[in-house]
Amino acid sequence: MAQPAHSSTPARQEDSLLARTVAAIRPPDETARARAYERQGRLTKPAGSLGALEDLAVQLAALAGVCPPPMPDPAAVVVFAADHGVHAQAVSPWPQEVTGQMVANFLAGGAAINAFATQAGARLLVVDVGVAHPLPCPTADSSRFRDQRVRAGTADMTCGPAMTRAEAVAAIEVGIQTAADLTASGARCLLAGDMGICNTTASSAMVAAMTGADPSVATGRGTGIDEDTWRHKVEVVRAALDLNRPNPADPIGVLATVGGLEHAALAGLILGAAAVRVPVILDGVITGSAALIAAALAPESLTACLAGHRSAEPGHALALQHLGLRPLIDLGLRLGEGTGAALALPLVQAAARALREMATFDTAGVAEGSA
Amino acid sequence: MAQPAHSSTPARQEDSLLARTVAAIRPPDETARARAYERQGRLTKPAGSLGALEDLAVQLAALAGVCPPPMPDPAAVVVFAADHGVHAQAVSPWPQEVTGQMVANFLAGGAAINAFATQAGARLLVVDVGVAHPLPCPTADSSRFRDQRVRAGTADMTCGPAMTRAEAVAAIEVGIQTAADLTASGARCLLAGDMGICNTTASSAMVAAMTGADPSVATGRGTGIDEDTWRHKVEVVRAALDLNRPNPADPIGVLATVGGLEHAALAGLILGAAAVRVPVILDGVITGSAALIAAALAPESLTACLAGHRSAEPGHALALQHLGLRPLIDLGLRLGEGTGAALALPLVQAAARALREMATFDTAGVAEGSA
Repeated sequence: MAQPAHSSTPARQEDSLLARTVAAIRPPDETARARAYERQGRLTKPAGSLGALEDLAVQLAALAGVCPPPMPDPAAVVVFAADHGVHAQAVSPWPQEVTGQMVANFLAGGAAINAFATQAGARLLVVDVGVAHPLPCPTADSSRFRDQRVRAGTADMTCGPAMTRAEAVAAIEVGIQTAADLTASGARCLLAGDMGICNTTASSAMVAAMTGADPSVATGRGTGIDEDTWRHKVEVVRAALDLNRPNPADPIGVLATVGGLEHAALAGLILGAAAVRVPVILDGVITGSAALIAAALAPESLTACLAGHRSAEPGHALALQHLGLRPLIDLGLRLGEGTGAALALPLVQAAARALREMATFDTAGVAEGSA
Repeated sequence: MAQPAHSSTPARQEDSLLARTVAAIRPPDETARARAYERQGRLTKPAGSLGALEDLAVQLAALAGVCPPPMPDPAAVVVFAADHGVHAQAVSPWPQEVTGQMVANFLAGGAAINAFATQAGARLLVVDVGVAHPLPCPTADSSRFRDQRVRAGTADMTCGPAMTRAEAVAAIEVGIQTAADLTASGARCLLAGDMGICNTTASSAMVAAMTGADPSVATGRGTGIDEDTWRHKVEVVRAALDLNRPNPADPIGVLATVGGLEHAALAGLILGAAAVRVPVILDGVITGSAALIAAALAPESLTACLAGHRSAEPGHALALQHLGLRPLIDLGLRLGEGTGAALALPLVQAAARALREMATFDTAGVAEGSA
């Protein structure tokens, strides 16, 4: 069996960016939550008639510590791109080069997330945190692309750990720094996206490790594989778990052994957003498995998390259930890139806008029901 | 038993606006549908990975008769407001005056639909097609408000027909004309909304009449009534159906006996949109029951219909199932006003934008999967 590193986590080193970020994450503001709940009841609508969006707006108030909450606008989608050594195990029909080619496609404006981000009025930032091949996009400016490559893809998790603990922490801190930079430049809502051929395989391993689910339950068909490839993928996930034995009480270890560099960066993005009380809209199973890590490192970071959608990947439903998150959209998407998060952004903004802008029964001169 | 009018429907009078509109509704364009389906497979994403949004964009192409379809933008929300004589049967805790008060609230910008329409970038038009009380908003301009009152609320359907067939047709034609005017002034997507105290009661009766469901299955809690009021509401719906005996093969008769003026106008809006091949996003149970009428008058009008959401009203799920429509959003909303439609608008626009703007594998230089 490969030997995972058992050094103390950098989260315990009080001067690390990760440790400082985790320490900065505060519980939700219960006073703001109560005020938001009470305000929902005075707005010109039957009580509870906006369904889950009422709870969402209340959560935004509790996160921000003020009622009504600030508008989650402007918003920024971050796509962390990275490759996976487990590609050598033939778990995907796509060549590994597609990760870098899709980064170029993002920068050229041709991908689904470009269309969805444009529609939602959100900016798009692509961060290379671990692409294996040289990127064909050297001229992109730093407002759209950042080279923060920690290593050129992970190692094959069926032969040993995917990366070192230090590399996992470095990738987490790329995510934390990205959240800090974007919110410092004005973003009031972050959307979590990913690109990485084979990253559903790593996600399934992470979900299995963090929730205890069997690999056959946590593993799906990714971009659309056939039955034989799916059975093989399940066994690959099982082999990686058997070899590395990740411990759910050691989330950095889970990332290092069976995770991905984009998963680590996404966990960091969540922690970084939570530390500055800005909401982060999750996407599918890749961000869902990253949220399991973030929640294990800092449970209160979940206050900042909104589940944009439920993907077709079975591991995603497991992750959402484990986290207690209700998805806003459930339309069978299984693309990643932050597409499910971008679709949900207008719903999040509508929920906040209603709590901010609607009239109350007394100010509008509308009679209240006697029920 | 009250005597419903059995005159020939105006739809058979070839010169009526309703008859001309029904005659103008064409089947979907199967060539455009096939081209859109084929194009979905060439875009830089795994086949099918945008889930239900891929089907939606294909439907928009089939409706418009061109691939890619035009952007469903700009969009206009129409709220038809009317009152219901069945209010006398104490089926709602809200005073009837609230219908008019909410119209004033819409025009002052204080309602949920104002916040949601603003968020979605859609204009809002309120049409009084049958409010019972004088409206406190005489100064509103015609781009925001129209007085098209057919009568001052329906009659109590437990004592006889809610309105005459001629009034039902007149209200349908208000909806048709509204669709014609809005699309002539540039709207490329219509959103169907309603306001009317007690209109879930009429909707339940319509759903029961059109689908054959028992009133106890088709009737919900509306704005939030208690168990006793719900039982009473079910018996009121049952009494109206027993008295009027609406025939699902005579949709005008269903509207006239147990419907509402806003239901009629909404059915007309759907027919008017379908006639000019512009999509219409439905809202909850009120627009859902109106769509049952539109589909019975012109089955091909369903090509123009997109189900914005599934409301908490049980009659809405029955209507969607009967129409074969899959809702885009399912968040427990039960407000009406077009709120569920407005939330879905960005999803519809994102679906169209992806099919219009995404790169194909060959143009983007992205390798395709071998699966």
